[in-house]
Amino acid sequence: MKKILAYLSPEKYASLFDLIVGHDAGADVIVPYCNITPEDVRDMVHSCIFTRHPDDLKNTAIFIGGHDVNLGEQMLDKAVEAFNELPDFFRVSVAVDPDGAYTTACGCAVKVKKAMEGNLQGKKAVILAGTGPVGQRVAVLLTKEGCDVTLTSRKKGRAEQICALMKEKYGADVKPMEVADDASTEKVVSDKDIVIATGPEGIQVLSKSIWSKFPQLKVLADVNAVPPAGIEGVGIQDDCKELEGRVAIGALAIGSLKMKVHLKLVEKLFEDNKTIFDLEEVYAIANEMA
Amino acid sequence: MKKILAYLSPEKYASLFDLIVGHDAGADVIVPYCNITPEDVRDMVHSCIFTRHPDDLKNTAIFIGGHDVNLGEQMLDKAVEAFNELPDFFRVSVAVDPDGAYTTACGCAVKVKKAMEGNLQGKKAVILAGTGPVGQRVAVLLTKEGCDVTLTSRKKGRAEQICALMKEKYGADVKPMEVADDASTEKVVSDKDIVIATGPEGIQVLSKSIWSKFPQLKVLADVNAVPPAGIEGVGIQDDCKELEGRVAIGALAIGSLKMKVHLKLVEKLFEDNKTIFDLEEVYAIANEMA
Amino acid sequence: MKKILAYLSPEKYASLFDLIVGHDAGADVIVPYCNITPEDVRDMVHSCIFTRHPDDLKNTAIFIGGHDVNLGEQMLDKAVEAFNELPDFFRVSVAVDPDGAYTTACGCAVKVKKAMEGNLQGKKAVILAGTGPVGQRVAVLLTKEGCDVTLTSRKKGRAEQICALMKEKYGADVKPMEVADDASTEKVVSDKDIVIATGPEGIQVLSKSIWSKFPQLKVLADVNAVPPAGIEGVGIQDDCKELEGRVAIGALAIGSLKMKVHLKLVEKLFEDNKTIFDLEEVYAIANEMA
Repeated sequence: MKKILAYLSPEKYASLFDLIVGHDAGADVIVPYCNITPEDVRDMVHSCIFTRHPDDLKNTAIFIGGHDVNLGEQMLDKAVEAFNELPDFFRVSVAVDPDGAYTTACGCAVKVKKAMEGNLQGKKAVILAGTGPVGQRVAVLLTKEGCDVTLTSRKKGRAEQICALMKEKYGADVKPMEVADDASTEKVVSDKDIVIATGPEGIQVLSKSIWSKFPQLKVLADVNAVPPAGIEGVGIQDDCKELEGRVAIGALAIGSLKMKVHLKLVEKLFEDNKTIFDLEEVYAIANEMA
Repeated sequence: MKKILAYLSPEKYASLFDLIVGHDAGADVIVPYCNITPEDVRDMVHSCIFTRHPDDLKNTAIFIGGHDVNLGEQMLDKAVEAFNELPDFFRVSVAVDPDGAYTTACGCAVKVKKAMEGNLQGKKAVILAGTGPVGQRVAVLLTKEGCDVTLTSRKKGRAEQICALMKEKYGADVKPMEVADDASTEKVVSDKDIVIATGPEGIQVLSKSIWSKFPQLKVLADVNAVPPAGIEGVGIQDDCKELEGRVAIGALAIGSLKMKVHLKLVEKLFEDNKTIFDLEEVYAIANEMA
Repeated sequence: MKKILAYLSPEKYASLFDLIVGHDAGADVIVPYCNITPEDVRDMVHSCIFTRHPDDLKNTAIFIGGHDVNLGEQMLDKAVEAFNELPDFFRVSVAVDPDGAYTTACGCAVKVKKAMEGNLQGKKAVILAGTGPVGQRVAVLLTKEGCDVTLTSRKKGRAEQICALMKEKYGADVKPMEVADDASTEKVVSDKDIVIATGPEGIQVLSKSIWSKFPQLKVLADVNAVPPAGIEGVGIQDDCKELEGRVAIGALAIGSLKMKVHLKLVEKLFEDNKTIFDLEEVYAIANEMA
């Protein structure tokens, strides 16, 4: 029986990246559905669960992609609602990973944990330019690992809004902070163990002249793959590499783990018919793959 | 050589249900075309027949889906027109089954026939709330089996319009009747052997207090799978089950045969390159699968 | 590892013809992307090259289809630009063949060359009604083979515009000429060795009463498959057939070679990860297949 993956996206096009990874992970058939709204999800769920015998439903799965992770999570919620109206053998497994936000955030958090020798309890971390989908979810994951996490934005209101959303969605206490210049950057990193840069491509958010002033900074992680680096001095291939007494983690090291997690995630979709791959489940995969 | 199914639909999305069934029936590749109009069909037919050698054309087929069975039949007509312009080895097989109307109607008619021990000649049947695609085609099939068929609607004009359409399309003589309350329901079932309910999901169209008054009623069939039942007392799993002296047929019993017919239909599309699976052909499959 | 073909088209629908040929040529998965603009191409290229290891990239390829060959070539240029921003192992092979323009033009030119016993150097050729995508590219190919080529249109300005475009794109010197009636048709064929008709379906562009006046005319080639023939007297199945002292080449003979070239082209897309199948590369394939 063929492994069929329904790929749901609110965008105009299905991500070719996701489709290729889906095939490489073992899906036999991927059916892309674009321009999908949360309201369309219930019908898709019904089409999945009413076509094959419940014993065979592990061969059907749903992957929610697109660009907007919060919209993706709304679609996931709709799928869960549709399952909950029915007997519990009418299920298929579902993953959500718009723009790779879950897999990248999990890859990043796992690398940071490794750089801290597996112990994040009580550490102080800051996510610079952290209001994007990856930064948001790295903040949540580090909070759950026991870190004291601050998330920055150039706009205080934006940072506050995101922290409130993370509290609401995940119960995570993340501290918002406005960081818009060198003085505020210096202030926010001055007492941290970990700095993670999740800003847009090609924008430096932390200069070496700043981070080199603070010897307590142990980990410098950067998800930006397009030069210049988000954190000056971090190479994109650095994989927990020593950098003047710190541990540097570059975008390709995170990306390489992200890719392994993404592949494993699709594989696992077809292992049973009942797993909802929320952030916690994907983080468990990332820990397993590291 | 791969079995390639071109799936044509006038809707925004291809039915994921149909695509999964198509793969389970042995299609290697299904290419969904959405927002298709009858005018697009000729080009699709040409693409099918001019790419492979005529000897190989049994490996290419067309399935017309969507929600609107009459529009689907128009698309089928356009395919036949396109074939007729060309030498007769330039053919591919074509099926039409919007919203499962053909396969469900055939499944229902076959179950009713079985409940009547294979003999429908001269029997009186009524299709309650029969103006939908399934009700329309059940009416045609029972007429061809020799039944005297009445089709009801809450609006007389609607019932008359549908009966005229069935006469025009299939040459079937079906009697229209307005049934909008208990009195008219009682009247219409009072002399029937068979009642079939094809109303919308979750609407009861015949109460037990009515049908239990009429001992001549032998078969109670209901295509509605969402509670409450269309015919009070009929269970969705009832498969020609005895119910106070009658034979009850529920939606899952019909649906289970429908699924077998649907799978077989797609399989048969790839057996030769020249079959048009009209209602009669699909009914033959349903009789074979029962 | 599956051979994945990304099929990019600016049209509303992917060509079912191209998809079937793609599968028959050995692609395991074809992902159609419609309504694509040149601006979308960079992202598609990135999705292709960042998902698989560079050693595996020969299993991913791009095919640009649609109806507009000049727009297709713009999309190809965008793909090449995207490759050029990156290290040279980040490549996938790319073909462009909107409405079969490349493969048909190459098939036609190869047949004409064969009819001239392999020697086109210094020969005089006219492409009648040559402003369409096939006519344009046949003109370029014959020019490169050393022919002196004239391209006609009913409108002088249109012929001039196309010849200027062929000069700009391919460096080909093609002579424009207005041919709108029997007198001008007679004039243009009066000193030619080769006449090729690439007008629209079902329109005769050269009558027998005209071509029979000119004994120096050696080759009569016609790409029109719908009666009446573009050149009176040429049968659609004529494959370098003797016709009153001339060599006749009909649309099916060209089309049959076109199909072989098309299949081989897709096969070759998966032989390495670095070939751009421009007109010259496709012509090399056509010569090899003949």
